Amino acid sequence: MPQLRLALNQIDSHVGNIAANADSVVHWTRHSAEQGAHLVAFPEMMLTGYPVEDLALRGSFVDASRTALRELAERLAAEGFGELPVIVGYLDRTEQAVPRLGKPAGSPENAAAVLHRGRVALRFAKHHLPNYGVFDEFRYFVPGDTQPVIRVRGVDVALAICEDLWQDGGRVPATRSAGAGLLISINASPYERDKDDLRLDLVRRRAREAGCTLAYLAMIGGQDELVFDGDSIVVDASGEVLARAPQFSEGCVLVDLDLPAARADAPEGVVDDCLRIDRVILSEEPVEPYEPVVAGGYADRLDDDEEVYDALVVGLRAYVRKNGFRSVLIGLSGGIDSALVAAIACDAVGAQNVYGVSMPSKYSSEHSKGDAADLADRTGLNFRTVPIAPMFDAYMGSLGLTGLAEENLQARLRGTLLMALSNQEGHIVLAPGNKSELAVGYSTLYGDSVGAYGPIKDVYKTDVFRLAAYRNRAAARGGEIPPIPENSIVKPPSAELRPGQVDTDSLPDYPVLDAVLAMYVDRDQGLDAIVAAGFDPEMVAGTLRMVDAAEYKRRQYPPGTKISAKGFGKDRRLPITNGWREQA
Amino acid sequence: MPQLRLALNQIDSHVGNIAANADSVVHWTRHSAEQGAHLVAFPEMMLTGYPVEDLALRGSFVDASRTALRELAERLAAEGFGELPVIVGYLDRTEQAVPRLGKPAGSPENAAAVLHRGRVALRFAKHHLPNYGVFDEFRYFVPGDTQPVIRVRGVDVALAICEDLWQDGGRVPATRSAGAGLLISINASPYERDKDDLRLDLVRRRAREAGCTLAYLAMIGGQDELVFDGDSIVVDASGEVLARAPQFSEGCVLVDLDLPAARADAPEGVVDDCLRIDRVILSEEPVEPYEPVVAGGYADRLDDDEEVYDALVVGLRAYVRKNGFRSVLIGLSGGIDSALVAAIACDAVGAQNVYGVSMPSKYSSEHSKGDAADLADRTGLNFRTVPIAPMFDAYMGSLGLTGLAEENLQARLRGTLLMALSNQEGHIVLAPGNKSELAVGYSTLYGDSVGAYGPIKDVYKTDVFRLAAYRNRAAARGGEIPPIPENSIVKPPSAELRPGQVDTDSLPDYPVLDAVLAMYVDRDQGLDAIVAAGFDPEMVAGTLRMVDAAEYKRRQYPPGTKISAKGFGKDRRLPITNGWREQA
Repeated sequence: MPQLRLALNQIDSHVGNIAANADSVVHWTRHSAEQGAHLVAFPEMMLTGYPVEDLALRGSFVDASRTALRELAERLAAEGFGELPVIVGYLDRTEQAVPRLGKPAGSPENAAAVLHRGRVALRFAKHHLPNYGVFDEFRYFVPGDTQPVIRVRGVDVALAICEDLWQDGGRVPATRSAGAGLLISINASPYERDKDDLRLDLVRRRAREAGCTLAYLAMIGGQDELVFDGDSIVVDASGEVLARAPQFSEGCVLVDLDLPAARADAPEGVVDDCLRIDRVILSEEPVEPYEPVVAGGYADRLDDDEEVYDALVVGLRAYVRKNGFRSVLIGLSGGIDSALVAAIACDAVGAQNVYGVSMPSKYSSEHSKGDAADLADRTGLNFRTVPIAPMFDAYMGSLGLTGLAEENLQARLRGTLLMALSNQEGHIVLAPGNKSELAVGYSTLYGDSVGAYGPIKDVYKTDVFRLAAYRNRAAARGGEIPPIPENSIVKPPSAELRPGQVDTDSLPDYPVLDAVLAMYVDRDQGLDAIVAAGFDPEMVAGTLRMVDAAEYKRRQYPPGTKISAKGFGKDRRLPITNGWREQA
Repeated sequence: MPQLRLALNQIDSHVGNIAANADSVVHWTRHSAEQGAHLVAFPEMMLTGYPVEDLALRGSFVDASRTALRELAERLAAEGFGELPVIVGYLDRTEQAVPRLGKPAGSPENAAAVLHRGRVALRFAKHHLPNYGVFDEFRYFVPGDTQPVIRVRGVDVALAICEDLWQDGGRVPATRSAGAGLLISINASPYERDKDDLRLDLVRRRAREAGCTLAYLAMIGGQDELVFDGDSIVVDASGEVLARAPQFSEGCVLVDLDLPAARADAPEGVVDDCLRIDRVILSEEPVEPYEPVVAGGYADRLDDDEEVYDALVVGLRAYVRKNGFRSVLIGLSGGIDSALVAAIACDAVGAQNVYGVSMPSKYSSEHSKGDAADLADRTGLNFRTVPIAPMFDAYMGSLGLTGLAEENLQARLRGTLLMALSNQEGHIVLAPGNKSELAVGYSTLYGDSVGAYGPIKDVYKTDVFRLAAYRNRAAARGGEIPPIPENSIVKPPSAELRPGQVDTDSLPDYPVLDAVLAMYVDRDQGLDAIVAAGFDPEMVAGTLRMVDAAEYKRRQYPPGTKISAKGFGKDRRLPITNGWREQA
């Protein structure tokens, strides 16, 4: 059987930054070539970044992607990689589609091309378009109708893009019908908790359906609220894993494969789902047999807490860097949320680039002020204290506020203070809100919701505790000082906006609250189903009322790392003016 | 030819408020019956409101809609309207769809039912689903595959929902194939500037294609960012207009039609676009010939400024009421934007429910303070003054801010002040930003962007001036005091955040800026195309850079009335971390 050394470049790209993305392709193609690769692949929409959202509908952006692709082909050849086929995702358009209402303007395509000898040897578009959760691809793209197959060193390689593997029909059976010896799928599949297990099962199943070796190339990095976790996988035709790449780590997965030689009577024409086989012969001559072979390796899986924590770090790092910032600013209350955010920030951008500010009021306890200072000591972040009493007194003198207005005022004075320091010193502000409090609206709009990014906005409070404990354990194991003060973990959560206030004055205990929220928010279950699961009907009804009423606040909350299938970001769309109330 | 008196109820509904919406249907059915109607229709998704967004994916909400529909049928019969067929839009699900990845969970349908004799006589789902602009219906609904036809008093009436008319194929040709004598389309079609002309042309064209009289029933009111402008239309088979309802006005359009008797050999089976004719006979006996007949009437069209102004009033009024507020709060700077917002608010909720607060700083000019007070005098809104000097001094004493940080601080102190009054007194805060400044990011996040609703967020600055002049003219015509001080209209726009500041320090002149924005934002044209239209390349490049960089601020901006096809609300989705820059 012919051998083939495959290089799967599990790397990041930056939406819109086409020049930098093209540089990345050249850099990693050079690396792949130096490692002796015979075929090189890059992720879905590598050249434009993913997701481009409405930029797909701007003709000049599509033009820029098309031009960059042609220039990239020429540049790769000029740099000596012309004979090495390179698969790269980009944004294209089709000239065949008839413009009509209901079709995306300009007929954009989520496309990929094979670059070879300075030219675009073959191009194709994603066939199955996802339009659920965080995806809106019916809005942006017209589907591809070909089954691309390239012959590389005597091996027929079928190609697919992301959702082509997830949905039934289409390119997986078409790969079998086309008689290909290898199926490569390039992806930009957003991270979700436990999705790695799902993906592995999917890839193994699809390899058996396609009847050939399957290489699944994942993206790594972050874009706005999405995190890409890597975890590229290669399996043989029986579903046995040949290689698995690390999670949350950029690099080139190199693997030697023994593949069937292309059939002399390779099928042509239209196969499954009306896909027309588009076959291009790049090179017929098999590679000379060689040894030793590269086994690809099998990276250890992260445990659940480590995986989520790393997702938060990668998401934050990408957001800060891609927005052109170097440093972050966090209000430190001494509580667990801001402490976890600070620990994540130190891991993401380095403690020397993390600025913390304690903003005590007359309701702040001594231990809170001490806990904030302790966190700063433990992590080495930059720390200062600015009391809000003078600002508070100025407002109270003019307005004479009481109750909730007085409570919210304190949070808003802190938000204004953080933004003033951000504007003056150039840091990006991080919002400390967790998913539990955002879900029920237990936060102050323009107060603690202030910030350009909310690292833990999709993390329930019970998980905040777990992740803080995990991070401290990991530090202790590594012989470092645990970053998060024990006191921040064990004391009862409180907003400290009035004397003696604790969260449980207003909310159910967090383990109960989070269990209800997971059913209502994450799994779209209704009141009856939640009560049937054994929760107190009055508590459930009250909680759902809070969630329904909090939509406006959530819309004003900054983006943050998504770590579950249904959160408060792009994959949840509710009306604000919402008369709907679950009834007891 | 048989006669038929049709009642098209051009009314509002409230998303999620199913009980109130059902009450509305009963109220207007009674009215229709009292007027002698033989067939009654209500808008698309009347029973649930439109758009329900992700509520469609919550099974308990779909259940609530289905149950409410059955109860409504029984209630109408119990109240004596059982013999009167009532067409009403609602949310349903299909049990026939096979659940699979890529299909909406629970298989929801954008449905409509014909209620008759206490039962659901017929039901069907929208066939063409819009998935562009503000629409996401592939995310929410599975399409209907029938062509519903009801026989009412010997006339065959085909039914359709909104997009079924807009897209080619489907129910319009199927109506002709089914040999129907009348096509009724129920709609929730959002307002866009100049859409009334488009709609009239569409309805006339589709009537000719269907070969029968066409009744287009529109919704009226507002839901979040969407405004529904009414403008129901009835045309005959040649496209001649028989009736046209007023814009922005709730009511029942009553029209007597002479319609062909149902054919004895009425077709059955599958017709155009694989639609299966679903025919239900409600009553065969034609109505006894009667006179006099109701002509339907042709309401005068509003002129362009009046139309846009009314859309802003209707949108704001709906948002305030549907969110359960009675009064609004506005920061009054003396400038044109807040003056126009105040005028709109007085028209929407009454001056007695409008609270204005002037928050001068040391940079506020005397004429600005005077102009704000003058506005209050002219309109009769509730007015107070709270200087921000004490708060400003408190921050400056602690932080020593300079430059932009000092400028933004003033705007944020005002935002905090408005929210404090809102929390204390219960008003909803309105944000005064216009589309021009939001597009280029010429605003302060958490400052002048504070508010629950931005009435003019989709109105360019040049249109702000036009609308202010229009409103004053209209007042003068009506013998009222023009609400907006002439000085607010004629003085050079300024943020007054530093001495002598004017907008043109940072921005091109507004007529030029708005022309560029209309090409870039509204029509998705690129730099080359805009420069080719005759604008200075450097100015264009600088403007596009500002727009590209402002996405994060815009996402944090509150909802507001949409008045054009592409604004900064739901119909524009861009990445925040955007490396894309149009190059000169």
